[in-house]
Amino acid sequence: MALTPARTMPGVLELLPLDQIAFQRMLDIIRRNFERFGFLPVETPVIEFSDVLLTKSGGETERQVYFVQSTGSLAKEGTPELALRFDLTVPLARYVAEHEHDLSFPFRRYQMQRVYRGERAQRGRFREFYQCDIDVIGKDSLTTRYDAELPAVIYSTFRELDIGAFTIQLNNRKLMRGYFESLGIAESEQQMLVLREVDKLDKRGVDYVRDTLTGEAFGLSAEVAAKILDFVQVRSRSLDDAFASLDALGSGPEALEQGRAELKEVLGLIRDFGVPETHFALNLSIARGLDYYTGTVYETTLNDHPQIGSICSGGRYENLASQYTRSRLPGVGISIGLTRLFWQLRDAGLLGNARSTVDVLVTQMDAAQLPTYLAIANELRSAGIATEVVLESGKLAKQFKYADRAGIRFAVVVGEDELAKGVVTVKDLRRGDQFEVARGELAKALRVELEQAAVMG
Amino acid sequence: MALTPARTMPGVLELLPLDQIAFQRMLDIIRRNFERFGFLPVETPVIEFSDVLLTKSGGETERQVYFVQSTGSLAKEGTPELALRFDLTVPLARYVAEHEHDLSFPFRRYQMQRVYRGERAQRGRFREFYQCDIDVIGKDSLTTRYDAELPAVIYSTFRELDIGAFTIQLNNRKLMRGYFESLGIAESEQQMLVLREVDKLDKRGVDYVRDTLTGEAFGLSAEVAAKILDFVQVRSRSLDDAFASLDALGSGPEALEQGRAELKEVLGLIRDFGVPETHFALNLSIARGLDYYTGTVYETTLNDHPQIGSICSGGRYENLASQYTRSRLPGVGISIGLTRLFWQLRDAGLLGNARSTVDVLVTQMDAAQLPTYLAIANELRSAGIATEVVLESGKLAKQFKYADRAGIRFAVVVGEDELAKGVVTVKDLRRGDQFEVARGELAKALRVELEQAAVMG
Repeated sequence: MALTPARTMPGVLELLPLDQIAFQRMLDIIRRNFERFGFLPVETPVIEFSDVLLTKSGGETERQVYFVQSTGSLAKEGTPELALRFDLTVPLARYVAEHEHDLSFPFRRYQMQRVYRGERAQRGRFREFYQCDIDVIGKDSLTTRYDAELPAVIYSTFRELDIGAFTIQLNNRKLMRGYFESLGIAESEQQMLVLREVDKLDKRGVDYVRDTLTGEAFGLSAEVAAKILDFVQVRSRSLDDAFASLDALGSGPEALEQGRAELKEVLGLIRDFGVPETHFALNLSIARGLDYYTGTVYETTLNDHPQIGSICSGGRYENLASQYTRSRLPGVGISIGLTRLFWQLRDAGLLGNARSTVDVLVTQMDAAQLPTYLAIANELRSAGIATEVVLESGKLAKQFKYADRAGIRFAVVVGEDELAKGVVTVKDLRRGDQFEVARGELAKALRVELEQAAVMG
Repeated sequence: MALTPARTMPGVLELLPLDQIAFQRMLDIIRRNFERFGFLPVETPVIEFSDVLLTKSGGETERQVYFVQSTGSLAKEGTPELALRFDLTVPLARYVAEHEHDLSFPFRRYQMQRVYRGERAQRGRFREFYQCDIDVIGKDSLTTRYDAELPAVIYSTFRELDIGAFTIQLNNRKLMRGYFESLGIAESEQQMLVLREVDKLDKRGVDYVRDTLTGEAFGLSAEVAAKILDFVQVRSRSLDDAFASLDALGSGPEALEQGRAELKEVLGLIRDFGVPETHFALNLSIARGLDYYTGTVYETTLNDHPQIGSICSGGRYENLASQYTRSRLPGVGISIGLTRLFWQLRDAGLLGNARSTVDVLVTQMDAAQLPTYLAIANELRSAGIATEVVLESGKLAKQFKYADRAGIRFAVVVGEDELAKGVVTVKDLRRGDQFEVARGELAKALRVELEQAAVMG
């Protein structure tokens, strides 16, 4: 029979077990932190009705959508009835609108699932990737205080993920629009265009943005362009510095005053939430490309790896689900694109050593002693120690090699000598040494070793 | 603007948060048990190349497959290039063949992901559902001892899931075929047909199966049919009983002898793995419809709810990935269809009371005291207690109602009185009582309450 080549499509990140364990650990940490702050889990189907999924999106999203057809519907004309979700925000809107009367508001949900985009295949672009989202949704209204809670969750999460120093950067869309308005850019549409230009500041640089703003498309004066560039280059070094920078903008139209008041409240509360001032800052260039943000916007960057870009972004929106319900549902949310983050961290060598979920391998010296090996494994598992038993007979050296290659640190050996003495030998494959312990003390001794290993690495 | 009705397609199980929490707890328990036995996590992309996915499957599977097309490829003729996986076994075969040289054998993997089938919509049939699979894959060979390990994992998992008494039932395909052979049913194809008939015994009853076997299609004598029916009605009441039943079959052709030897070894080892004799049994009617099983086969049923059918099934196969690689990869595996199981348990009222992942709600009596409330929440979260703070101002009674509805048991109240005395009030919303505790003792006191609640319910 001719073989079919075993392969996956480009743009997916399929991992070998040790990498999958590292990925799973990150998912677990994120989930633990989301839950610690009182967010509730939601999972939605990966397949949605196309008309539900594509109500709001522009042409760009539609071109990237994966449509789904069962065999029976393949022959049908027109846009297929089903499609794969391309983010978790549209499914959230659909979920909240569908289950509105069964939910308590403010509705605080987290969702950690994969999303799909028919992207052109290129390095670092994924067609399937995990998003880890939290959102707080209000009914009719939602206090700005929640805008301060999300940075507290981000801080707690990334601290525990332990991937280096990071800064949560904040801005406010109203403040930006109000400031542009004070410079004579009065039209909302024009404000959005300027906002999108300044969003490119970090990527394209000051000169590029200045040239664009004073060029034909915008036709702004050199003076106005300079003021915009001064504005968007504001970065705070402390909370007091942030307050001072905001005050230094001077008085302005209502939008500016409202945006400033919101930012001040949010920044002050972030401190009250226990986030150190070293970990959050004002950054007036943050705009976020998406049109639906209306107030606070966030980006989070690794201090030592700015090239990775934002590792967690989000913001405040006025109305989550206007396409599905007449209820007004304002909210605020953030999203971690974990697949891309994991890929970048691994690429930059920041992931650290792979460690297996398997703590101990019980080796097999003598097949006749299998019941003893199984009983030992049972004791260890009851003590919460993840244990594999070698069931295939073979040389001990080969069994050690298997453990070492699989990232299992400890091997338990019981031969004639050990049986006679009522002990077992524990081999530490990383340190390359071994010790004997009474059979009854094994679980306790291994727990101590494993706790030390977890701390010391 | 006209609204789009918010809805999901039929055949998916979308849960409200409290049900999602219950579902997630089951997933966590299953994962913890899989890891405790030393299985390694694997996740594969939900989209596979169609030619990779559909190499082995017959027409039935192909009719149920969901094909995937990006917008650009919609116009193309012929079978679409991409499709959604319909199980986790084909992706495992592809994974092992693709990464063969990077894996250690025996390769022990678990995988807990959703799969997709374009089923006709009907009650209890799902188009999207979770499968929780473990498999052990050998290179060239794999000792039958692993066939005994999987029931040990099942036992440990279902005991912790705490959904009532269950029995892991075992049979062996070789034993069945050998027995049929001893009755003169020599052709392999004919053996398979008989095997599929007796698999219907529990659903259709003895009379139906006898009539079919003695009818035109099979044309077996009444005597042979009676022997087959006697055979498949064998159920053991203990390990000794199982051995006695197997011996009572008398000697027979090689396949029968081999199957009997395997079953005896497996049954004995299951006991050595620590599974009580009350929880596993011989059941010679278990055949499993799938053609690829060649030795041990398993089904697990709830003793008090036989109508639910098998909640965990699997078996031994000769060669996992012959369509992708010339390497011989024998294996043994089991699968829990968690979505269907959850749905059935909920339907039968066996799920128990919903409890939130949120342990404590810190209420807001006075907005001016928000920094105090946030500091308390911070202390609780640092102590590992999942805590939500009310940020929206409003009446206390409404806040209690929110907590109660959301399944949050404890509410923390700090008003003027408490502040003056340096205490906080803890309200137990389930028991309907409350107590005061010194602010510095709050986290400790709540941990005690939560531990009691976890034990007492």
